Amino acid sequence: MNFIFKIACKDEKGLVHKISDVLLKNNLNIVKNDEFVDREKSLFFMRTEVSGIADPQKVMDQIKDQLGDCNIELSKNTPKNIVVLVTKEHHCLSDLLIRNHFKDLNFNILAVIGNYESLKDMTEKFDVPFHYISTENITREEHEIQIMQTLKNYEFDYLVLAKFMRILSTNFVEKFKGRIVNIHHSFLPAFIGANPYRQAFERGVKIIGATAHFVTDDLDEGPIIYQDIIKVSHSKTAKDLANLGRDVERNVLANALKLVFEDKVFIDGNKTIIFE
Amino acid sequence: MNFIFKIACKDEKGLVHKISDVLLKNNLNIVKNDEFVDREKSLFFMRTEVSGIADPQKVMDQIKDQLGDCNIELSKNTPKNIVVLVTKEHHCLSDLLIRNHFKDLNFNILAVIGNYESLKDMTEKFDVPFHYISTENITREEHEIQIMQTLKNYEFDYLVLAKFMRILSTNFVEKFKGRIVNIHHSFLPAFIGANPYRQAFERGVKIIGATAHFVTDDLDEGPIIYQDIIKVSHSKTAKDLANLGRDVERNVLANALKLVFEDKVFIDGNKTIIFE
Amino acid sequence: MNFIFKIACKDEKGLVHKISDVLLKNNLNIVKNDEFVDREKSLFFMRTEVSGIADPQKVMDQIKDQLGDCNIELSKNTPKNIVVLVTKEHHCLSDLLIRNHFKDLNFNILAVIGNYESLKDMTEKFDVPFHYISTENITREEHEIQIMQTLKNYEFDYLVLAKFMRILSTNFVEKFKGRIVNIHHSFLPAFIGANPYRQAFERGVKIIGATAHFVTDDLDEGPIIYQDIIKVSHSKTAKDLANLGRDVERNVLANALKLVFEDKVFIDGNKTIIFE
Amino acid sequence: MNFIFKIACKDEKGLVHKISDVLLKNNLNIVKNDEFVDREKSLFFMRTEVSGIADPQKVMDQIKDQLGDCNIELSKNTPKNIVVLVTKEHHCLSDLLIRNHFKDLNFNILAVIGNYESLKDMTEKFDVPFHYISTENITREEHEIQIMQTLKNYEFDYLVLAKFMRILSTNFVEKFKGRIVNIHHSFLPAFIGANPYRQAFERGVKIIGATAHFVTDDLDEGPIIYQDIIKVSHSKTAKDLANLGRDVERNVLANALKLVFEDKVFIDGNKTIIFE
Repeated sequence: MNFIFKIACKDEKGLVHKISDVLLKNNLNIVKNDEFVDREKSLFFMRTEVSGIADPQKVMDQIKDQLGDCNIELSKNTPKNIVVLVTKEHHCLSDLLIRNHFKDLNFNILAVIGNYESLKDMTEKFDVPFHYISTENITREEHEIQIMQTLKNYEFDYLVLAKFMRILSTNFVEKFKGRIVNIHHSFLPAFIGANPYRQAFERGVKIIGATAHFVTDDLDEGPIIYQDIIKVSHSKTAKDLANLGRDVERNVLANALKLVFEDKVFIDGNKTIIFE
Repeated sequence: MNFIFKIACKDEKGLVHKISDVLLKNNLNIVKNDEFVDREKSLFFMRTEVSGIADPQKVMDQIKDQLGDCNIELSKNTPKNIVVLVTKEHHCLSDLLIRNHFKDLNFNILAVIGNYESLKDMTEKFDVPFHYISTENITREEHEIQIMQTLKNYEFDYLVLAKFMRILSTNFVEKFKGRIVNIHHSFLPAFIGANPYRQAFERGVKIIGATAHFVTDDLDEGPIIYQDIIKVSHSKTAKDLANLGRDVERNVLANALKLVFEDKVFIDGNKTIIFE
Repeated sequence: MNFIFKIACKDEKGLVHKISDVLLKNNLNIVKNDEFVDREKSLFFMRTEVSGIADPQKVMDQIKDQLGDCNIELSKNTPKNIVVLVTKEHHCLSDLLIRNHFKDLNFNILAVIGNYESLKDMTEKFDVPFHYISTENITREEHEIQIMQTLKNYEFDYLVLAKFMRILSTNFVEKFKGRIVNIHHSFLPAFIGANPYRQAFERGVKIIGATAHFVTDDLDEGPIIYQDIIKVSHSKTAKDLANLGRDVERNVLANALKLVFEDKVFIDGNKTIIFE
Repeated sequence: MNFIFKIACKDEKGLVHKISDVLLKNNLNIVKNDEFVDREKSLFFMRTEVSGIADPQKVMDQIKDQLGDCNIELSKNTPKNIVVLVTKEHHCLSDLLIRNHFKDLNFNILAVIGNYESLKDMTEKFDVPFHYISTENITREEHEIQIMQTLKNYEFDYLVLAKFMRILSTNFVEKFKGRIVNIHHSFLPAFIGANPYRQAFERGVKIIGATAHFVTDDLDEGPIIYQDIIKVSHSKTAKDLANLGRDVERNVLANALKLVFEDKVFIDGNKTIIFE
C-alpha cells in the first residue's frame, strides 16, 4: 500500500536526509519524490510517495520528531469526500456527478447543496442527496448557518463551489480554510467581478479563460490551482463566449480537483506549489 | 494580379449584390471573400480578394458610387513599409530584423528609432538606419516632435512599437490613427501597467501571455489584434516569467503584424474584426 | 427567421452575383456570409445565413436555376436529430446525454445503440431509448443489418460514433455517406489503429490528442473536422494517458458536432471546409 | 556557487538517503531536487541542485562510492558549447544566432557548418565562424569525415541540427551519442519522412506541429524532448503550412535546447525524463 507525506517547513540543511532516514528505517521505498524551496520566504515543500508495510501514523510521528516545527500531512491515497455547492448553472455539477458515478476522479460526492431547486432532479438522478437551502427572506449569515448545519451531517474533506454564485463570509471561509475550491468564470486577474463574458465581449479579447482557486477571505484573490483558455474571434457574441466559457470552466475545475485530490497541491501564502 | 478591397459601412440590404455587380462588370474573379455584420452597431465589414485585369482604382471608385457613404480601402497585396520604435529590449526588434532580412513577412523596415543606443549595432548589422533620439533633458512633447521630424523622411504605412516603453501623447496617437501597433507584455486586461511579470509572479498565476493591439489614446485599451499564452508553474521566478514572456511577445507581435499587413484586420471601435 | 444555404459547385465568375441577386429579389438580408475557393480543384464553397420572410425552398430552387449543376443544402437552423452508437466507454456518451438533457448543443438524441449493455442504465436515466444489439455469435454483416433495422425507426440527420469500437462495412458507410461522425482516440495521422495511448506511452511523446472526423470507407482516413491536444510528461503511465485522453476526446467530439450541427462544415474530398 | 548532479541507476531502497548523506557531510544545501522511478524498467533518476562550498568532483566521487554502478553527471551550470549544422533554411539558425548574441539561452555557438553557402553571410554577421562543407561529388561517408575533421577544432558539448536536411550515418550518430539534438518538421510520429507540410495539407489536418529530439540510429525515432503545435484551417495552402510550421520549429527547438542545456533532461531508452 502507498502513503503520501506532504511536508512543509522552514528551509534548512539536512531536511531530506532526516526524512529519508526515517523512511529507510521503516523499510519504506520512495516511489515518487518532489521538493521545492520558496527562496523568497525560505520555505521547504516536499511530497513523498512511499510503498511498504508500516504504520503510516507512526512514521509520520517519527518524521515530526526529527523535523520539529513542521506541517506534515499524511494521505492514504483514498478517494476524497466532498460536498458540492451550486446555484443554477449545471455544467460543472453535471460533470462532477458523471465522474462520481463512474469513479473517474478519486472523490465521492456526499451531497449537493443548492440555493435554487434547479439542479435537484439532476443530482438525485445519480442518487446523491440534494439540500435546497433558499436565500429568500434571510440574511447571508442565516443562510450560512443553515449550510453549516447541513454540513455537520457529512464528514467531508473538501467543499467544491461548482458555480455557487454567492460570496462567502470571512467567518465561513476561515472555518474551512484551505478546503474550499472555487471555479471562477474568467482568466484571473482579468475581468474580476460579475459578467466576465460580457466584459470580455466589450473589450474584444481574442482569448477567454477560467481559473480554479482555493477560496480565501479576499474575493477572487485565493491561491490559483489551475487555469486554461480558448481562443475566440470577433464573430462570437457575449452569449457565445459564455457558452464556450462553460466548457473551459468544467475542464479547469476537473483538472484542479484532480491535482488537489491526489495530494499534489500545497498552499504557500496566496500561491500554490503543485507537484504534477 | 490580385487586389484586396476592404469595405466598411452601415449595414443594409443589397450591399453584396451591388459590390459583386461592379466586380463582375469589370470581369474580376472573387478569389476569397469574407463578410461580417456587427449587429449591435449595424455595421457591415467585407474583405474581397479579386483577380483579373482591371484598373483597381477605377473599380474602387465604381464601388464607392454604388455604396455611397462607405469606407473603402484598396490594397495591392504588396509589402507594407514600417518604422519601428524601440527602447532597450531586443527580442521583438531582432525578430523583425531577421524577418525583414529574409522577407519572411510582407513588410520592409524603413528605419528604427530608439530612445537608447543599445539596439543601434544590431539594427545596422542588417543595413537598416537607426535613429537615436534621446529623451534626456527634454519634455515628452519635444521628444515626440523630434520623432515626427525623423518620420517625415519616411513614407511608411505603419509604426510598430516593438517594446517602446514610453507613453505616446494623444496628439501623436491621433496623427497616426489606426496605424500604430504595440506589443503589450501581458495578457490584457490582466496586469495593466508596469512590471506585469512581477505582478504575475506575486499573484501566482499558472498562465502568462502577451497582447498585440492598435494604439489609441486610452492606454492599454486599444483594439486587440492577437493574444497568446503559455502555461507556467510555481518553480518559475519573476525573472523566469519575464524570459518566457519575451518569446510569447515576439511571437504575438509577428502574428499580429502578419494579419495587419495582409489587410485582414478591420478596426471596429475598440475591437478588431479579423478575416483569417 | 434565419435560413442557411450551403452551396458547393465548380468555381466560375459571377457566382456570388447570381446568388446575391436571388437573395435580394426575395428581400432577404445576408446576416453572415463565408466563401472559399479550393484552387487546386477549382471548387467554390459558400455558406450564407439570411434573415427575412420568404419560402426558403422556393429561394433554393431559384438559386439552383441560376447556378445549374450545383450542390445546395438548405438548413433552418433547427436542432439536428442524432442516433449515437457506443461500445463500453461512457465518457463521450455521458457528455452528449448531459448536453442533450440541458439543450446545450443544438441536437436531439433519438436513441443510443450499444453492442454491450454497460451504458443502458446511464442512457435510460436521461429518458433516451437504448437498444442493445449484441455482436455475439453473429457476423459483422448480420450485426449491421440489425443496426439498420433499428435505425429505420428513427428519422435522424447524423449517426455519432461515441467510442463505437467496431469497424463499419463499406456498405454501411456508403448508406450514410457524410452523415457519420467518429471520435478517434489519437491525433491522426499519428498512432493509427488500436491502443494509441499505449503506443504514445511507448514512443514517449510529449503531446497526446484526439480527432473527430467523418467516417469514410478508408479507416481513419475520413475528412477531419476537429483536433485538439494536451501536453503530457514522462511521469504519466499508459493508463494516465488514456484517462487524460478521454477528456480530450469528449471535448473534441463536442466541438466537432457543434460545427457540423450549425451547418458550418463542408466535405471537400478527404478534407473539410469549415466556416467558423 | 551551484552544482547539479544528474544521477541514473537501478532502483533500490535507500538511494535518496545515501545521496543526501554525502551532500550533508559536505555541508551542501539542496536547492532543488527531482526524482522519478521508471517502474517498468526499475530505473531511478534524480537531479539535485546544491549550493555550498565544496569540491564538486570530490562530492561526485563520494556519491559514486556509495551507489556503486551508477551513471552520474556533474554540471556547473555554465553555458554549453555547441556547433550548429544547417542546410539552407535560416529560421532556426537565425533564432540561435540572435540568442547567442544576446546570451538569452545558456549556450555559446562555437561554429556553424553548412552543406550550402546560403547561411554564411548571416552567420558571419554575428562573428561566428561558418564552415562550408559541400556534399557535391562526394559520398556521405566522405562528407561526414570532413565534418568530423572540422569538429575536431571545437570542444563542444552538443551538436544542434538546425534544419540539417541530411541523414547521418550510424557511425556518426554513435560517435556523439546523446549529444545531437534535431528539430523535426512535424508532430512525430505523424508525417514521418519528407515533405510533412505537403502531407499535412493533403490529409487536411487541423493542427500542425514540430518535434525536437535526440538523434539516434533509428531515423525520426530518437527520444523526444519537446513538441508543440498550432491550429490551422482549410484556408491554408501547403506553402502557408510550411511558413507557419517554421515559427513552431524554431520555438520548439529553442525550448528543447533550454531544457537540455539546463541539465534537466535524462535519456531513458527511446524516451526522455525531464525535470522542469
